[in-house]
Amino acid sequence: MGFVIDGLQYANWSRDIFVEMRAGGVDAVHATVGYHEDFLGVVANLAAWNRRFEVDGDLVARAVSAGDVRRARAAGKTAVLFGTQNPLALGTDLKRIEICHQLGLRFMQVTYNQQSLLGAGCFEAVDGGLTAFGREAVAEMNRVGLAIDLSHAGLRTAADAVAASRRPVAVTHATPAWWHDTPRSLPHELIAEVTRAGGIFGFSLYPNHLKDGGDCRLQAFAAMVAEAAGRYGAEHLAIGSDLCQGQPDSVVQWMRAGDWVRHADASVQFPAMPAWFGSNRDFPGLRAGLVSAGLSPEEVDGIMGDNWLRFFEASFGPA
Amino acid sequence: MGFVIDGLQYANWSRDIFVEMRAGGVDAVHATVGYHEDFLGVVANLAAWNRRFEVDGDLVARAVSAGDVRRARAAGKTAVLFGTQNPLALGTDLKRIEICHQLGLRFMQVTYNQQSLLGAGCFEAVDGGLTAFGREAVAEMNRVGLAIDLSHAGLRTAADAVAASRRPVAVTHATPAWWHDTPRSLPHELIAEVTRAGGIFGFSLYPNHLKDGGDCRLQAFAAMVAEAAGRYGAEHLAIGSDLCQGQPDSVVQWMRAGDWVRHADASVQFPAMPAWFGSNRDFPGLRAGLVSAGLSPEEVDGIMGDNWLRFFEASFGPA
Repeated sequence: MGFVIDGLQYANWSRDIFVEMRAGGVDAVHATVGYHEDFLGVVANLAAWNRRFEVDGDLVARAVSAGDVRRARAAGKTAVLFGTQNPLALGTDLKRIEICHQLGLRFMQVTYNQQSLLGAGCFEAVDGGLTAFGREAVAEMNRVGLAIDLSHAGLRTAADAVAASRRPVAVTHATPAWWHDTPRSLPHELIAEVTRAGGIFGFSLYPNHLKDGGDCRLQAFAAMVAEAAGRYGAEHLAIGSDLCQGQPDSVVQWMRAGDWVRHADASVQFPAMPAWFGSNRDFPGLRAGLVSAGLSPEEVDGIMGDNWLRFFEASFGPA
Repeated sequence: MGFVIDGLQYANWSRDIFVEMRAGGVDAVHATVGYHEDFLGVVANLAAWNRRFEVDGDLVARAVSAGDVRRARAAGKTAVLFGTQNPLALGTDLKRIEICHQLGLRFMQVTYNQQSLLGAGCFEAVDGGLTAFGREAVAEMNRVGLAIDLSHAGLRTAADAVAASRRPVAVTHATPAWWHDTPRSLPHELIAEVTRAGGIFGFSLYPNHLKDGGDCRLQAFAAMVAEAAGRYGAEHLAIGSDLCQGQPDSVVQWMRAGDWVRHADASVQFPAMPAWFGSNRDFPGLRAGLVSAGLSPEEVDGIMGDNWLRFFEASFGPA
C-alpha cells in the first residue's frame, strides 16, 4: 500500500497547489465543499470542482471510493474526495443525505463550531447533544455510507454520535486534549471510544491545534502521534492536515463568523504554519518525522494514508 | 437481447404500477422527474425515487447506464432511468448539466411546449431556434453524456439541435406528422435527420398523438411503425409510451399550464387510452401487434427495447 492521504484540506484550489500535491506524493485528499453554504452553495462548489477536474485532469481526479483512489494513484493523479464541515445542505430534509451521497459527498460533519440542526459545536455555550433530527441523520448516514465526521462538534454531541452510530465514525482533523487542550481538542476517553468502535482520528496540523502553535517542532508532534499509537493503536490514526493553502485572511474570518454575525472580527488571521509543514510538498518530511519517533514502517504507512484507505473501503457504500 | 424498454412514462408511481411493470415484462423505463420544477424540485423528485427504491427494491432499481439495466433484468427488476422534460433545473448555469448527470439524470428535453432558455417549444407562437445558451448546453450535454431529447420542441429548435449535436439525439415520445399531424408531431425530414445521425425516435401512445385518438386500432399503429421502419430503418425506432397511469386530471392541467398561467383550464382531462394499451401490462400485446404488421423478430426486438439499450450504451458516458 503506502498511500499518502490527507483527511482534510480547504485550499484556495489552483493548478499550483495540484502541482504541489503531486510533488508531495499526495495520493488523495478530502476537500471541504461546504462550511456555511446551503444545498445550492454546496452544489456550486461541486460544480467548480467538476471544472477543475476538466481543466487540470492531468493532476487531479474525482473520487467517491477507495477504488477511485487506487485508480488515481495508478494514473499518477491526486484523488479528491468531498465532504462538508456542516450539515446545512440537508436543510430539514433527511432525504437530502442520499442525494448528497449521490452528488459525491463522502464525509459530513455533524456541525461546525456552532449549533446545527443535528447537534452542538465545540464553541457553543450549551451542548444539548445530538438532536432528534441528528439521531435520524446518523442512522441515514450509516445506511447510505456517508461518513460521520465529528471534528468541530461539542463533546456531548460527539459522544452521542459515537454511541448512536452503527458504523465507525471519523474525526478527520483534531487534536488530543492531553497534548494541547483547546475547544477543538478531544479528551482521551472520547478518542478511545471513537477508535475502539473502529473509527479513525486524524491529527490536525493547523497551528492553533498544535502545542506551541506555529513554533511546534516536528519532533514534538511526532512524539505525540507515537504516544497516541500506544494509547489507541496506530491503525486508527491518520493525518487531517487542515491545510488552507493560499487562502486570504477574509476566509478564516468567514469560517468563524459565517453570515450569522453582523460584524466579523477583521483582526482574525490565518496563523503561521510550522516551518516543517507549510504546503502539500511537506508530506515526505512529515513521514520522516514519524519514522524518527520510533513508529514502525507499517505504522507510519498506516498513519500517512493506508488507514484512511481502509476507512474509505469500509465506509462509503451500504453497510 | 429481447429487452422491453419504455422511453418515457410519468405515472403516479406506486407499488401497484411497479407490479404491473413486472407483469408486463418491462425491463426499463425512462421516468420523468421534472416538468415545471426548478433544480430543487427535481432534487425532491429524485429523493422521492430514492425512497421508492428502498421500499420497493424487490421490483425496481435505480439505473444510470445500460449495465444497470442489464443487472436489473438479471435480478428480475425494472430499471428506472431519469430525465426531465424541461431544462429548468439548469437555471442559467451550464455547470448544472454535469451536476444533473452526477445526480443520475440521463435525458433532458431542450424545452417543454413553451419557450425555455435553450429553445422554443412546439406550442410557442414564434420559434427562434436554439438560443445562444442552448448551443452551449447542447455541447455540454454531448460532453458529459446527458442525452438530448427533442420531444415537445419547436421544429426549428429541434432542427437546430440535431445540427448542433455531435452525438445522436433522442425523440423519446412523439409521432410522425405524415401519420397524425399535431403540434407535437415531427415532419418526415426531421425524423430522417435524427435517425440518419444515429438518433432514435420513440413512438408515443398518448391518445392525442394517435390517429383517431383513443379509438386508434393496434393494427393501424403497428402499420405506421412498419412504414416508419421502411423509411428510417427499424434500428432507429423505439417506444416512448408517455403513459401517465394513475394521474388525476389536475396533473395534465398542470403539465399544460405549469405555474405560468393565472388560471389553468380546468376542463382539460387525460384522454382515454386505447383499449390495447392502457397500462404497463400491455407491452406483450403491443409486441404481438408489431409482429402482425410484418416486422421481423429482430426488428420487433429492437423497437420494443434493444434499440434503447444500444442508445443508452452509446450515450450516457463521455463521448
